[in-house]
Amino acid sequence: MTPPLTLADIRAAHDRIRGKIHRTPVLTSAWLDTDCGGRLFFKCENFQKIGAFKARGAANAVFSLTDTEAARGVATHSSGNHGQALAWAARERGIPAHIVMPSNAPKLKVRGVEGFGGRVIFCEPTQAAREAACASVMAETNATLVHPYLDYRVMAGQGTATLELIEQAPDLDLVLCPVGGGGLLCGTAIAAQGARPAMKVIGCEPVAADDAAQSFRAGKIIPTTPHTIADGLRTTVGEPNFAIIREHVHDVVTVSEESIVAAMRRIWEVLKIVVEPSGAVPFAAVLEGKIDLRGRRAGLILTGGNVDLDVLPWQKK
Amino acid sequence: MTPPLTLADIRAAHDRIRGKIHRTPVLTSAWLDTDCGGRLFFKCENFQKIGAFKARGAANAVFSLTDTEAARGVATHSSGNHGQALAWAARERGIPAHIVMPSNAPKLKVRGVEGFGGRVIFCEPTQAAREAACASVMAETNATLVHPYLDYRVMAGQGTATLELIEQAPDLDLVLCPVGGGGLLCGTAIAAQGARPAMKVIGCEPVAADDAAQSFRAGKIIPTTPHTIADGLRTTVGEPNFAIIREHVHDVVTVSEESIVAAMRRIWEVLKIVVEPSGAVPFAAVLEGKIDLRGRRAGLILTGGNVDLDVLPWQKK
Repeated sequence: MTPPLTLADIRAAHDRIRGKIHRTPVLTSAWLDTDCGGRLFFKCENFQKIGAFKARGAANAVFSLTDTEAARGVATHSSGNHGQALAWAARERGIPAHIVMPSNAPKLKVRGVEGFGGRVIFCEPTQAAREAACASVMAETNATLVHPYLDYRVMAGQGTATLELIEQAPDLDLVLCPVGGGGLLCGTAIAAQGARPAMKVIGCEPVAADDAAQSFRAGKIIPTTPHTIADGLRTTVGEPNFAIIREHVHDVVTVSEESIVAAMRRIWEVLKIVVEPSGAVPFAAVLEGKIDLRGRRAGLILTGGNVDLDVLPWQKK
Repeated sequence: MTPPLTLADIRAAHDRIRGKIHRTPVLTSAWLDTDCGGRLFFKCENFQKIGAFKARGAANAVFSLTDTEAARGVATHSSGNHGQALAWAARERGIPAHIVMPSNAPKLKVRGVEGFGGRVIFCEPTQAAREAACASVMAETNATLVHPYLDYRVMAGQGTATLELIEQAPDLDLVLCPVGGGGLLCGTAIAAQGARPAMKVIGCEPVAADDAAQSFRAGKIIPTTPHTIADGLRTTVGEPNFAIIREHVHDVVTVSEESIVAAMRRIWEVLKIVVEPSGAVPFAAVLEGKIDLRGRRAGLILTGGNVDLDVLPWQKK
């Protein structure tokens, strides 16, 4: 049986999208290295198109469509970066994008989708309402669904960040990657295991949204009720994602909310870059000492930088 | 008469320090380009050692010393980035650094100097007290003074940022550079005029600290009483600096405090990087439409990223 996601898929995705996305830089810091005793390589997807790695998966999905499929447009439901990413990718291909968003979505995100020419359809803020609205849009338009993580084309696109990271930071011993629905972690794991088999892949998750960690221990998906500041990681890991994670990921570690905020702040202060809470989760695992980095070289996927600058989590309310 | 600062000096400075400093990246943004009608190239000195371009000038001064001079150490007075830069450069050479700081200097800056092994000497927060304390330290130690901007070695070091920028962003029509004491602007102007004579050099300054702009118009130094958020630009332009600026800078434009805050915020939001108010001043000039950029390619020196993350200027007090 052919595995559903291979290194070849991720390489093909990279060939498909590399002219449209940024090859984001990898930053390092002597200070942060000294603190943890290892060498850290931050893959800065906050500098990616739309400010997050989601541009990779969306671009791969959109540019994988046949011309006939593409002409009908694409649709998704998202309150976060994936909606903007799909609207952006659709505009790059010159096709319509229908983005279902909850009525309480942040205005910034709504404007982001609209700024890329996406059509926003509002729905009640429940999973059922989102899916119903999305089904209705698809029935009306024949648009292709591009799910944020239950889609192998999306996973392959997300994995391209790690292909680049391995070229930019040679001889990595491990890669640390946040896990929400699992699209990024799957792409990361397949890219890492294929391109550099000696490298360990560690999923990083808030303890306040630890469905992937619990599921990893139990061997089956265990949904939880998330209540984390890391808004990109509130989704429960998907079935196809979990199958890949069980087989290809070495561990899933969890971090506290306090560590996420401290990690985010430290990255802003030392690396001088803006990252969102979800993107700081791997570094939070480093700060908590959850992973022994002494003498080792670790890549960290900084997933995005879309934050509301008026409300920073380390400031007094 | 040999000019006091030449392109050859700046090239020699670059050869001297390039192994110690970062070759900082140049960022671009399609969004910001669309807004101004030109092409903007941001030279990210916020990613420089110690978080600011000041590392360049300090390194050039420290590594220009003879072994005998160096052994006696270096001294300066600074409440800002130059103190940290000199402490860092001295540590790189393994020599003592004596940094006179006002007793009301931010703790973060004091800890920064100490973190690089510098010796901090506190004084009353007046210019006279700073100079007296510095003279006293020099008399005691025989250390060499490395002034933040009244020093051609420092100016040459600061100019290396523009040498790199010209390589990284070809065919620039102009370069926009903040002006405080004038060290950076002098280095920028000599580098730009030497390496690319067609390029215009524009100094950018808060209207609330517009000594350089007033002096430029009057043809003589006119001190003002600064009250700007851009703390790196509160100093009055120096005599040797002004002589170079008059001859080699094409214009000095001023911007409001509101524009500085808006520019800083826009850079954080769109470029996903942390810049300090002083570093946002050139982009503030773009936002104010002070410079016609339509169809032109402009380099902007983002001077640094050392800000107190607890107190962001766009937030309500």
